Amino acid sequence: MKKYLSLLLVLFLVPALTASAGKIVTDSLRSEILNSTVKFNVYLPDGFDKSDATYPVIYLLHGLTGNHTDWKNLGHMQTVADELSRSGEIRPMVIVMPCAGDRDTHHVPNGYFNMPNWNYEDFFYQEFIPAVETKYRIIGDKGHRAVQGLSMGGGGSAVYAQRYPGMYSSCYIMSGWLDNKADEVKASKGPKDCLYYTGEAVREHSAIDFVNNADEATIEALKTVKWFIDCGDDDFLFDQNVSLHQAMRRHGIKSELRVRDGVHNWEYWHLALRMSLPFASRNFDK
Amino acid sequence: MKKYLSLLLVLFLVPALTASAGKIVTDSLRSEILNSTVKFNVYLPDGFDKSDATYPVIYLLHGLTGNHTDWKNLGHMQTVADELSRSGEIRPMVIVMPCAGDRDTHHVPNGYFNMPNWNYEDFFYQEFIPAVETKYRIIGDKGHRAVQGLSMGGGGSAVYAQRYPGMYSSCYIMSGWLDNKADEVKASKGPKDCLYYTGEAVREHSAIDFVNNADEATIEALKTVKWFIDCGDDDFLFDQNVSLHQAMRRHGIKSELRVRDGVHNWEYWHLALRMSLPFASRNFDK
Amino acid sequence: MKKYLSLLLVLFLVPALTASAGKIVTDSLRSEILNSTVKFNVYLPDGFDKSDATYPVIYLLHGLTGNHTDWKNLGHMQTVADELSRSGEIRPMVIVMPCAGDRDTHHVPNGYFNMPNWNYEDFFYQEFIPAVETKYRIIGDKGHRAVQGLSMGGGGSAVYAQRYPGMYSSCYIMSGWLDNKADEVKASKGPKDCLYYTGEAVREHSAIDFVNNADEATIEALKTVKWFIDCGDDDFLFDQNVSLHQAMRRHGIKSELRVRDGVHNWEYWHLALRMSLPFASRNFDK
Amino acid sequence: MKKYLSLLLVLFLVPALTASAGKIVTDSLRSEILNSTVKFNVYLPDGFDKSDATYPVIYLLHGLTGNHTDWKNLGHMQTVADELSRSGEIRPMVIVMPCAGDRDTHHVPNGYFNMPNWNYEDFFYQEFIPAVETKYRIIGDKGHRAVQGLSMGGGGSAVYAQRYPGMYSSCYIMSGWLDNKADEVKASKGPKDCLYYTGEAVREHSAIDFVNNADEATIEALKTVKWFIDCGDDDFLFDQNVSLHQAMRRHGIKSELRVRDGVHNWEYWHLALRMSLPFASRNFDK
Repeated sequence: MKKYLSLLLVLFLVPALTASAGKIVTDSLRSEILNSTVKFNVYLPDGFDKSDATYPVIYLLHGLTGNHTDWKNLGHMQTVADELSRSGEIRPMVIVMPCAGDRDTHHVPNGYFNMPNWNYEDFFYQEFIPAVETKYRIIGDKGHRAVQGLSMGGGGSAVYAQRYPGMYSSCYIMSGWLDNKADEVKASKGPKDCLYYTGEAVREHSAIDFVNNADEATIEALKTVKWFIDCGDDDFLFDQNVSLHQAMRRHGIKSELRVRDGVHNWEYWHLALRMSLPFASRNFDK
Repeated sequence: MKKYLSLLLVLFLVPALTASAGKIVTDSLRSEILNSTVKFNVYLPDGFDKSDATYPVIYLLHGLTGNHTDWKNLGHMQTVADELSRSGEIRPMVIVMPCAGDRDTHHVPNGYFNMPNWNYEDFFYQEFIPAVETKYRIIGDKGHRAVQGLSMGGGGSAVYAQRYPGMYSSCYIMSGWLDNKADEVKASKGPKDCLYYTGEAVREHSAIDFVNNADEATIEALKTVKWFIDCGDDDFLFDQNVSLHQAMRRHGIKSELRVRDGVHNWEYWHLALRMSLPFASRNFDK
Repeated sequence: MKKYLSLLLVLFLVPALTASAGKIVTDSLRSEILNSTVKFNVYLPDGFDKSDATYPVIYLLHGLTGNHTDWKNLGHMQTVADELSRSGEIRPMVIVMPCAGDRDTHHVPNGYFNMPNWNYEDFFYQEFIPAVETKYRIIGDKGHRAVQGLSMGGGGSAVYAQRYPGMYSSCYIMSGWLDNKADEVKASKGPKDCLYYTGEAVREHSAIDFVNNADEATIEALKTVKWFIDCGDDDFLFDQNVSLHQAMRRHGIKSELRVRDGVHNWEYWHLALRMSLPFASRNFDK
Repeated sequence: MKKYLSLLLVLFLVPALTASAGKIVTDSLRSEILNSTVKFNVYLPDGFDKSDATYPVIYLLHGLTGNHTDWKNLGHMQTVADELSRSGEIRPMVIVMPCAGDRDTHHVPNGYFNMPNWNYEDFFYQEFIPAVETKYRIIGDKGHRAVQGLSMGGGGSAVYAQRYPGMYSSCYIMSGWLDNKADEVKASKGPKDCLYYTGEAVREHSAIDFVNNADEATIEALKTVKWFIDCGDDDFLFDQNVSLHQAMRRHGIKSELRVRDGVHNWEYWHLALRMSLPFASRNFDK
């Protein structure tokens, strides 16, 4: 058995150990605003522990019914980030993956916006960002902060960058749930349904309406963010994503759009990381 | 000089000569319908002259202000077709690039539809296809015929496959000019303008309206064609191309859509060939 | 809860249910030759159960220390195969993923070749192929059979297609373990080590030596197979994979080679499926 | 005609005019060292004329029998650079394309190295770089200088970055002519042949030997350059390019390698620009 282990060591473990690699730590933050403890995963780049360097950050948001472990377990984000780092396609950065309220843990509604009993946006800006950016040596300005996410987290990314354009250098929306007018999520009538408020909040935070209703100063502010929309040609949220691109285009806000073959699944989002992480990286200030 | 030539031969010419390669011939057809002689280029696959084999065919259509030489000279179609053949990504096939009336030669309006003094659609189906498919040993059925094109030729492709779904196994639309409601081409008032009729014909042959107005039997017929739409995110015809995809989707007609970075130019269409030729190839019957 | 379920149904399940999709079944075969029961997974294409059609087949082989579940669980092969089917990039096909002896189950050496107490090659050709091709309605000739695999399974694929060129239309090698001269696996001295024989068998079945030592008739036979080698630029088996490409090239055997960014891991192989499955598909006879 | 022009304006010219775009200027420099006037093309990024900004630079080198116009006319480098700029994949930069002695103009040997009557390396470092970097507002340090090229220019790039590692942040080699031991160019016996000296110079400046013979200090210096090798799987110079990657790997010098489908032609190099320009850009200091 000892011999066998040494064989495996040669074959698999040594290459893995010697190559530069980041790591993911699981952390949590007690929130007064939410009256809850919010878990989050943090990807720390190779060499983080051995330096005092400060880093840019991507907030990488999960989707409806997901949690802070999705990007690690289903999106294989560490493998992708490590490979892009080794080939120089991304610079060293911290990637923060917060939980936006999974039902199993919290028995509360889900989502990135303020809603009854779940003022997540308040939590995110007043409690979470200050704490996490201090603890993990994040530079902490617009030039070194990006937001990205999938589905509900794509909508969260869009709206966060729309409402706080002074805080983000770039925003990458994957298969974004950007509106709920067509009842993409058919919120039930009863207010007790745990998804009712989520659906309503998305309806009220339409990223498309936001652009269409923006005044000139807001449009100018939106132009200071780099936008990227990435959605599969067979995704059930396709129309929304195209509409956001078209709305931004009409208002002179440069936006990248890519439509690849695909639907609303992890295969699409896993592949999206190969574009989204470099997109954030090259739009960071140096 | 002799020595020098032999050097070059070793370096460049020999590899090119020994590798399998197709060739492009320029041909023309006298049309009674158009009262004109229509030029066309034909790509013949490697080995065409040495066999009696019959082949599938792609009709590859140029855009407004273009002619039959565009795909060769600006799209580098021979290089792409040869490489895809060598790697097995396309099977041997004939690719026909007709001229749809360039002004320099014909002093007549441009385009793939019937219009005053330019019944190109009649010419295409009554004179051109029969002649070219006989002369170039084309199999000549739906299972072995595809249509593709860029801009005005993308619109031509879409409408040809919509009006003759029994004739094409697949249709690939690049940056298609699919409608003219928003006056993408602002036809001048005067009927003497050589582009007036072209713009009007596109308006009357809206590929989007065609889908939206189709009866059930037509929808079923459209489902027998494989559809692919490929348009740049910054193309001025972007909205039309997305609208066609959405219309087909609403009617249950499977359509591939890809949006890559790009505008309305040959860089985009040259790259499109790497997807469009294999798309036609794998949708041919064997 | 009922309401909540209906929400999820709209959001996630319905699209998944309505889209065409294959399925993976786990099966096993009692082998007299191995004196063991060999498990395998089989991907059956959409519609398999509703038709009497026969299908082409890919044998998709796992690597050292792996088993028949790897391609499903780590390579996400079902998602990739379903998507490529829906977009028409692959035709309906059966994909067979056999176990080549994982230690936990068999306590025997691993691998695709004959070795003491593990005549896997005999099993594969005398017992496995006949049984699986009958049971799963596989067409069962060279024109409709391909072999692909990763690492040790890449070596297995190469050697199987070299030794049985009359049985395979194509072979796709991912990060192949193609030789053991440089002791890529440092076999321990003692013959009791469970990997000793595996390493020795690879050494004796060098795919590179096979090409270099082939007589003219063998070279001609190898030319009837389509070859594809795909290996990361930082893979520790990189040199071997390039050597095989170079050896084939020297002998006039056309071989595709792709070197992408990457190492010896599932990220690479997962992405490889997007090329390997269409490669097999387009090289099947119709 | 006026109407017609206005139509075209709407359709084609306006989008082109409003989009940001660089431009290419043709310039020349009188060289005492070469006793010749050397032409070169310079790509200036959008906004160059309207600012006093300084820029990073890529030296983009042509191949044997080529000249300073190749990258513009055959490689379509302006289209690619403009598109990558607009999507933010490259930062604003100057791209310098010098002529290394085309026969028609100079009637002298070709190449980037010193050889009898053609001390191009001396010219490049003593005359060309100082002049061009002053005139075109180039920052002019290692952190803002890259070298790239195809075939003979790929060899020139490799050797320049090897001999002057303190001057380049990155080096991208396309289908590099990196050695001449196997007489890839069969130099004729007679010394009068205009390519004789070119072939001999490449032989004497083997980029592979350079790595294999490098002392420790040189290896350390080479590690300060980012290396990228890109060569087609059917290129007649394939073996050389792989050998250079392998030699660097053996010496612990990180090198990216990509092998795509292709041969020694402009189709390959045109596509290479989509990787090479961003590679240089992300390896520039900010």
